[in-house]
Amino acid sequence: MSIEREQTLDSILGGRLRLLQPRRGYRFSVDSVLLARFARPSAGARVLDLGSGCGIVGLAVAALNNIKELAAIEVQPELAQLIARNAELNRLDHVRVLAADLRAHPIAGLDPDAFDLALANPPYRAAGRGRTSPGEQRRMARSEAGGATLADFIEAAAVYLRRGGKLAIVMTAQRTAELIDELRSHGLEPKRMRTVHPRLDQPASAVLIEARKGGGVELALEPPLILYRCAGSYSEEAIDLLGQRQP
Amino acid sequence: MSIEREQTLDSILGGRLRLLQPRRGYRFSVDSVLLARFARPSAGARVLDLGSGCGIVGLAVAALNNIKELAAIEVQPELAQLIARNAELNRLDHVRVLAADLRAHPIAGLDPDAFDLALANPPYRAAGRGRTSPGEQRRMARSEAGGATLADFIEAAAVYLRRGGKLAIVMTAQRTAELIDELRSHGLEPKRMRTVHPRLDQPASAVLIEARKGGGVELALEPPLILYRCAGSYSEEAIDLLGQRQP
Repeated sequence: MSIEREQTLDSILGGRLRLLQPRRGYRFSVDSVLLARFARPSAGARVLDLGSGCGIVGLAVAALNNIKELAAIEVQPELAQLIARNAELNRLDHVRVLAADLRAHPIAGLDPDAFDLALANPPYRAAGRGRTSPGEQRRMARSEAGGATLADFIEAAAVYLRRGGKLAIVMTAQRTAELIDELRSHGLEPKRMRTVHPRLDQPASAVLIEARKGGGVELALEPPLILYRCAGSYSEEAIDLLGQRQP
Repeated sequence: MSIEREQTLDSILGGRLRLLQPRRGYRFSVDSVLLARFARPSAGARVLDLGSGCGIVGLAVAALNNIKELAAIEVQPELAQLIARNAELNRLDHVRVLAADLRAHPIAGLDPDAFDLALANPPYRAAGRGRTSPGEQRRMARSEAGGATLADFIEAAAVYLRRGGKLAIVMTAQRTAELIDELRSHGLEPKRMRTVHPRLDQPASAVLIEARKGGGVELALEPPLILYRCAGSYSEEAIDLLGQRQP
């Protein structure tokens, strides 16, 4: 089986981004797209994508906004290569890919206190909790076991963001309290938060938070993001954000 | 002007509770009623209402549930008297009122590590921020200036709750991060959280959190509570919770 047959080419954001992904192993989720939409880079921003996978979050932010630079860090070399291919595929030429462990500070090629926006979609499952995903790639993306933890992602954001720079992060709703605590203990003050609910009458599945390095205490709890109007049918906002009508 | 003429008698929860309130000074808000509805005492619970005001939260919990005891702490003597009158008015006879400062541990008549549920509707404005409300009673209820702070309420809950006991608390949405941080640093782990939005497309005005003393890390972000269907018209859920059709 050739490498090509082990990948899929998916179109997202209403065709504004095309992405190669491994057919098995790492696959991006709707939450990644919601994170890219939630982030608000200022014009000319330097953006850092932490644990980039196939590049989905950073490349979507680059495709949707006028940014100066995207630096994508990914520890798995075959995924780092895929990010570079995906950047070419979408003619995004201000992208740097670093095959590096986001825990190994200082990371060669990354200046501390330099980035305006960091993006993070860390594994949802805490080490030692829940079932283990099959396959190494998938396991590292979904669980902290053996790889970077939520705290590691936040630590890296605190190191490479400039003062006043922002981290946009998505996490399973169950770990919201831990996430907020970890952000504040690293000097990243939550400023905007949005809960993502499958339906209006259901608990949140995920939480989106924007935190500012050295920011003052005041959080805006934005309107809830409701994904489905009814079973199998996306809400109008989900259609706008995801750029497609079918789940 | 007599004392009587300086008070109003209001009926809430669809007539299940009648409350005397000062016409000027302390007046309870919709958030107090939402907090009473959000709290879930187990049958036979010992309940502590911290900074009780006219008694609204604790008396509503006592009226709606089968509890063993309500202890209401209120530092302002004239309000403490009012709580006792309101308990009589509603024939709630398992209510103890303590005219005491919730910061002065140990409080005479209150056993540490003894309560199953604590209720707190602390002042929303941090000391030194925002405008000052006119009148002493109103000022103490609305702002931390000169009175108990958010941290003081949480400290008191941590002292008087048994291990496994729960604090139900309401706070302005802007201070959610600070609230979660303060709870965790006092060993009270957030377990349930609900955001209160005036309308579905508007940011949250308030947040309701239930935290458990010595609880494990896992938070349920419940469906958002939407107050108004459209301008001036309560949502069906708000009507159910508040027991009235007109705001």
